[in-house]
Amino acid sequence: MRALVHERVVRFDRDFPDPVPAEGECLLEVHLAGICATDLEITRGYMGFRGVLGHEMVGTVIAGSSAWRGKRVVCEINCVCQKCDMCLSGLAAHCRKRTVIGIAGHDGCFADQVAVPERNLHLVPDSVSDEEAVFVEPLAAAFQVNKQCPIEPRMNVAVVGSGRLGLLVAQVLAGTGCTLEVFGRNKKTLLLCEKKGIMSRSTDGAFARHTRDVVVECSGAPGGLDLALELVRPRGTVVLKSTYAGGASLNLAPAVVGEVKIVGSRCGPFPEAIQALVRKQIDVLPMLSKTFPIERGLEALDAAADPEHVKILLKINPRSSR
Amino acid sequence: MRALVHERVVRFDRDFPDPVPAEGECLLEVHLAGICATDLEITRGYMGFRGVLGHEMVGTVIAGSSAWRGKRVVCEINCVCQKCDMCLSGLAAHCRKRTVIGIAGHDGCFADQVAVPERNLHLVPDSVSDEEAVFVEPLAAAFQVNKQCPIEPRMNVAVVGSGRLGLLVAQVLAGTGCTLEVFGRNKKTLLLCEKKGIMSRSTDGAFARHTRDVVVECSGAPGGLDLALELVRPRGTVVLKSTYAGGASLNLAPAVVGEVKIVGSRCGPFPEAIQALVRKQIDVLPMLSKTFPIERGLEALDAAADPEHVKILLKINPRSSR
Repeated sequence: MRALVHERVVRFDRDFPDPVPAEGECLLEVHLAGICATDLEITRGYMGFRGVLGHEMVGTVIAGSSAWRGKRVVCEINCVCQKCDMCLSGLAAHCRKRTVIGIAGHDGCFADQVAVPERNLHLVPDSVSDEEAVFVEPLAAAFQVNKQCPIEPRMNVAVVGSGRLGLLVAQVLAGTGCTLEVFGRNKKTLLLCEKKGIMSRSTDGAFARHTRDVVVECSGAPGGLDLALELVRPRGTVVLKSTYAGGASLNLAPAVVGEVKIVGSRCGPFPEAIQALVRKQIDVLPMLSKTFPIERGLEALDAAADPEHVKILLKINPRSSR
Repeated sequence: MRALVHERVVRFDRDFPDPVPAEGECLLEVHLAGICATDLEITRGYMGFRGVLGHEMVGTVIAGSSAWRGKRVVCEINCVCQKCDMCLSGLAAHCRKRTVIGIAGHDGCFADQVAVPERNLHLVPDSVSDEEAVFVEPLAAAFQVNKQCPIEPRMNVAVVGSGRLGLLVAQVLAGTGCTLEVFGRNKKTLLLCEKKGIMSRSTDGAFARHTRDVVVECSGAPGGLDLALELVRPRGTVVLKSTYAGGASLNLAPAVVGEVKIVGSRCGPFPEAIQALVRKQIDVLPMLSKTFPIERGLEALDAAADPEHVKILLKINPRSSR
């Protein structure tokens, strides 16, 4: 099959071996896949991953459990053992033996087909298009912010970064009724915020320091945490959504002096993300910048690294006729 | 008066102007003062402070309110406005207009006399010696860990660093009944832990990764947070007690992947620290390495920077006869 494979460099392979589902796995035919910052970090060495890239997908089950066959699905990315202390204590996303689709020890979805655990699947309702469904994984990650740091209407909240993740987090948090600002560099994406009634601010502008109750760092840029620590109030919370390939030069003294809480946040609840799309609470389509066929996957990765673009998709197989 | 003054370099001044207490301030004659890592960081440029160094002290009130005159006291370090949003919301230690004794905008206690707000004073009970009382400020900071991250007996807790602060934090946490280990490099200080029945481990040894519920970073070393992030379990908490002058090269990706909470922690409750000394719950005297007269203050600062030493004190004025 065709696949975007990361070894030392990313290459497009027209004839990569088809995946063989293991016990408990289904085989998906991938319709659309999304490129996220983590994919770009992996191509720069993050996680030391080798194999098929990609973890944001929508597809159709073509082999495996008969209950799922023919169904259009999205897929959680952590493949877990259900036996370790983390799994048994309700933290399966932190399974000690986990593999992560397209990130660690498990081939991903930038390919014609991907084998995934049946228990990771979620049905896509008919009212949600492929172009919307491919956002479920990052949208779930955006919903995770509110799980780890419950946002109340009385709170002042800032989102740092108006890229892919920042725009999703901003829309999710706008639903909480808090006072919200998004800080970004890209005028085009800040305009998307304004259209949704979310206050947007340039990172170059003046701002009152140390006044926000919660700041969500979504920029993935080395200066993002520094800005977040300037914005957050003493005893406030910074939620860290971004991962970096390299060690950034950070000064955490302001976090100690301000007794700030920094909370790392990763994957989130798929059901909430799907329901938000069903109810049209989150607008993902304005975030689509370009869609590339998988054969032009390397070009797509370059486009995703360009800050002028928001979301880049890979069209892999036309949606099965239904 | 004599004073250890930090301008661009630290110098000993035999004839520094005596402090003049402002409205609401008392004048203390300093008996003993302690040198801490923050003092060393300040001499390397941290906070851009200029003035008399020092914020750990025990002394006698020699001028100011008659209620306090002649009393032996210790002194909180944050001088606050009592009017800003932080003060009015119960977070006076984070006062927007605060000065901090010997750290920011307020001369410190490495001098014959220091002027301090009356409201910052705490009486030292007779059963607590000067050599013990001078530990109240850092011991209060150690008690703050349990305020910001309540430790329960079921928890696995690690302290990173067996220096001045690490040994105080370890003793405070030992009182919670949790399972406790201290990681350090210095065999002498690790031996102090063993004598108190606290498990000690070399940072060079092997250890199970990602298994501690809470890790308290007290090393002040750039690698301390990296080790803490290796020790802490997914969704666990790292309490950050150390401040650094420079930006360290940190990789926070493990905090995001493990959804770890990093909590900055600073000053703590003086009354609890004083009571712990009265009840002999905390042994501070074995931590004393050397005491220097103020005239040899520069030598004392050098000694405090030597990892072979634990606590270095400055003897400034002999204790008033009582």
